[in-house]
Amino acid sequence: MITITAFKWVVPFAQGQVRDHRLRWALKEVGWEYEVELIDPAVQKSDAYRAEQPFGQVPVLREDGRPTLFETGAILLDIAERSGKLLPTDESDRALARCWLFAALNSVEIYLAEIAAADFFIEDEAVAKGYRAFALEPAREQLAKLSDALGARQWLVGDDFTIADLTMASVMKIVGHTDLVEAHDNLAAWRDRCFERPAYRAAIAEQCADFERHGPEDMGWDASLAGSD
Amino acid sequence: MITITAFKWVVPFAQGQVRDHRLRWALKEVGWEYEVELIDPAVQKSDAYRAEQPFGQVPVLREDGRPTLFETGAILLDIAERSGKLLPTDESDRALARCWLFAALNSVEIYLAEIAAADFFIEDEAVAKGYRAFALEPAREQLAKLSDALGARQWLVGDDFTIADLTMASVMKIVGHTDLVEAHDNLAAWRDRCFERPAYRAAIAEQCADFERHGPEDMGWDASLAGSD
Repeated sequence: MITITAFKWVVPFAQGQVRDHRLRWALKEVGWEYEVELIDPAVQKSDAYRAEQPFGQVPVLREDGRPTLFETGAILLDIAERSGKLLPTDESDRALARCWLFAALNSVEIYLAEIAAADFFIEDEAVAKGYRAFALEPAREQLAKLSDALGARQWLVGDDFTIADLTMASVMKIVGHTDLVEAHDNLAAWRDRCFERPAYRAAIAEQCADFERHGPEDMGWDASLAGSD
Repeated sequence: MITITAFKWVVPFAQGQVRDHRLRWALKEVGWEYEVELIDPAVQKSDAYRAEQPFGQVPVLREDGRPTLFETGAILLDIAERSGKLLPTDESDRALARCWLFAALNSVEIYLAEIAAADFFIEDEAVAKGYRAFALEPAREQLAKLSDALGARQWLVGDDFTIADLTMASVMKIVGHTDLVEAHDNLAAWRDRCFERPAYRAAIAEQCADFERHGPEDMGWDASLAGSD
């Protein structure tokens, strides 16, 4: 049996955003059953959890007979490679899908996360405004390049939905409160195509249902996105 | 023959930092010969290069009979897996080394890059100062957790140097102008152990020698770290 970790509750703007939704989505896509262990800051700080997840973040993936895996990107790649799904069958395309997985996390997400930092996390209004101005053009540029790369294709690599699409589409959610993605019709349509998948809808509903059953009192003062990679 | 791309020149504080040093280092560790194609912003913006690297960044890795790979993390993983070096032989440790590769890029580098952004890239002094104050404590926390995870071990995973060490040690360079790493004796000693490796020294010397032969006139106005993943 597989177990993943997630938070008991997060602030409303982060609901549907915490990184475990990427694992729930991938696991539903490949049809693997799993359980979810909901954790709180006390668990995050515990020696037992730090031994599994050095940074105390969610999610991890536990499975009998294997080491506990951490880092969403590493776990997505593991699920895709072991299931034989969510990766192209063509060897060249499979190598490129891996490149796109890293690109989603390292060449797109970091730029979009700066916009979210300015809009949600930086408390000093003048600093937030100034930082947003610094971060906006690079974020726009990366999305424009992504739109160019996607072009008229249905999916980022090959003929089917892969972890490249799953991860990159999830990254788009980080600026879901803005119109940055909507500036590119092909990008918005591709993202919506990803989000119409039953596995995505079920993953988000499941994460949000967990939050419905809990509240801030279950997490303490530092309930935020900060503990999700 | 393998070819990687790198910049003709970057501003002095970025010399020795641009991400292609990670590939040079890994390629020298595994003993694979390679050539370096030095590029400039005109190439970065060209359709031909964008077809290989959607974001116009360096480095890529070209090899006969294979698709051009992009994203440093993906290329490091590819080099390690195909060479059979830079990864533990134990299967569990090998899975964990992959987790650590992602952790370096997604749970540590992003926090340290915020310090570098404040110190080198944000031009408005008040915004830079305010943003640094926002980013400093999370960066310190991630380094403290990394120090705890390393403990008294020589290397991050298993008994030998792996891509986990290579990538994470390279990430430490981003705050090399501060004393953030030096706050943890074990972390500084491990980083120095990585940097004493002949392959690392040769990689940095090689990158800087390329810059010695060029100047800002070879790059144009936007010579910076911005185009390296």
